[in-house]
Amino acid sequence: MNRKELYQAILQKGSYLCVGLDTDMSRIPKHLLGEKDPILEFNKQIINATKDLCVAYKPNVAFYEAQGSRGWRSLERTMDLIPESHFTIADAKRGDIGNTSRMYAKAFFENMNFDAVTVAPYMGVDSVAPFLEFENKWVILLALTSNKGSKDFQFTAQEDEQPLYEKVMRRAQEWGNPENLMFVTGATQSAHIAKIREIAPDNFLLVPGVGAQGGSLHGVSMPGLNGHGGLLVNSSRGIIYAGDGEDFAVKAREAALTIKKEMSALLNQRYVTGN
Amino acid sequence: MNRKELYQAILQKGSYLCVGLDTDMSRIPKHLLGEKDPILEFNKQIINATKDLCVAYKPNVAFYEAQGSRGWRSLERTMDLIPESHFTIADAKRGDIGNTSRMYAKAFFENMNFDAVTVAPYMGVDSVAPFLEFENKWVILLALTSNKGSKDFQFTAQEDEQPLYEKVMRRAQEWGNPENLMFVTGATQSAHIAKIREIAPDNFLLVPGVGAQGGSLHGVSMPGLNGHGGLLVNSSRGIIYAGDGEDFAVKAREAALTIKKEMSALLNQRYVTGN
Repeated sequence: MNRKELYQAILQKGSYLCVGLDTDMSRIPKHLLGEKDPILEFNKQIINATKDLCVAYKPNVAFYEAQGSRGWRSLERTMDLIPESHFTIADAKRGDIGNTSRMYAKAFFENMNFDAVTVAPYMGVDSVAPFLEFENKWVILLALTSNKGSKDFQFTAQEDEQPLYEKVMRRAQEWGNPENLMFVTGATQSAHIAKIREIAPDNFLLVPGVGAQGGSLHGVSMPGLNGHGGLLVNSSRGIIYAGDGEDFAVKAREAALTIKKEMSALLNQRYVTGN
Repeated sequence: MNRKELYQAILQKGSYLCVGLDTDMSRIPKHLLGEKDPILEFNKQIINATKDLCVAYKPNVAFYEAQGSRGWRSLERTMDLIPESHFTIADAKRGDIGNTSRMYAKAFFENMNFDAVTVAPYMGVDSVAPFLEFENKWVILLALTSNKGSKDFQFTAQEDEQPLYEKVMRRAQEWGNPENLMFVTGATQSAHIAKIREIAPDNFLLVPGVGAQGGSLHGVSMPGLNGHGGLLVNSSRGIIYAGDGEDFAVKAREAALTIKKEMSALLNQRYVTGN
């Protein structure tokens, strides 16, 4: 999916919601545990309950790997379920030397047909570039994350006084462009979103951390939305674990709908009234 | 495997060689492609041909993921083949927020019983700590890598004038200790190994990049070996693709033996003659 198509999907749906499929065997409702592939069955019901409310799905690859090759199979099958109309993100945080990054790109872009993969920047250009070589595919590069440890290195001032995360964003724009490069920017750092928009005015931002991780949707959306959408806001646990009984999918839909309604209002404010 | 056992293995074998299992379907000798699981059959023959010459094996997880769930199964089966006497490293370069890192730790330490996993530092303490909570398991943290892109961020001077990779190494030693924390330090940066030994005198270093990536074994070993081994030097392509015919395992053994002999001499020089 290209940038224009993603923007169109956002406008048509009145939503820039990404639903995070952090599907954890220990949190799946008990009545699904007898299924042949409980992870797949859970994801299927979540997808059916939310697909008209969101524009993207983001499986967190760790949760599938934790189930071994069986989990990897569940991930492959989940990808077969997600409608082609939806943007798909492998939240994998990969990054290695060139020929190895190329293997990761093959795994996610070719074999499973993800639109995007999250990538860690520490190893620099040749760890990121192989992902950028695929047409209509995206790197979502870690810039500023919302976890406690983000303070360890991401904020450290460099010799030219800019923090590391800014340097990452500036340098990465020499490698990619707004058609193939997004940035992960944590929602609990919403004070920084305006600054981030200065550095990367045109790139889409993937904002995790709204909901369980405590970010404010309004706080990130006002500075984050740009002239062509420019924002995907993820919620994982707040949606998929909104309920834990047989009605989990209904509860998930309710949670997604609450966010979607707020997003529609924010989009309306940004693009229709222009405020 | 704990640090003492690893040191003992190094002394007994006269080797600190790690064989990298970057097993690429496109480079497997043709006569194996008819096997039910060509990757597994290739690894099996490589392991049998080299196990008396090395102390560790390091599957590069990307190469298995590139084959999807089938490749992940080959990785699981490969782990079943590696003798318990050998230290095993999942070269996965993972790192995410806490509960996600915990899932990756489960995948590699619990399900597949790896001794160690390579981890990327960008997200800081809570992305690394979950891996450190497992007894007798190891984090091998990316510090200074040997690829071109290492220059993008790792060498940038921080506000206190130390390069980022030094800051990573100093900070990480507040989280772990020489019993559960190693560092990845690229061999083509051998000029820096002496400096790295000052920062981390007791930690094991995993040095990739000897061989195909061009590092000098002597250059890294003299400053790198410490009072308890302290060094694992990896070679992947230089060993496993030394031959491409039916005798590939024989060729792999020859390549490993050449390195092992040089290592034995260097160990002798370091621990027996004391020079």
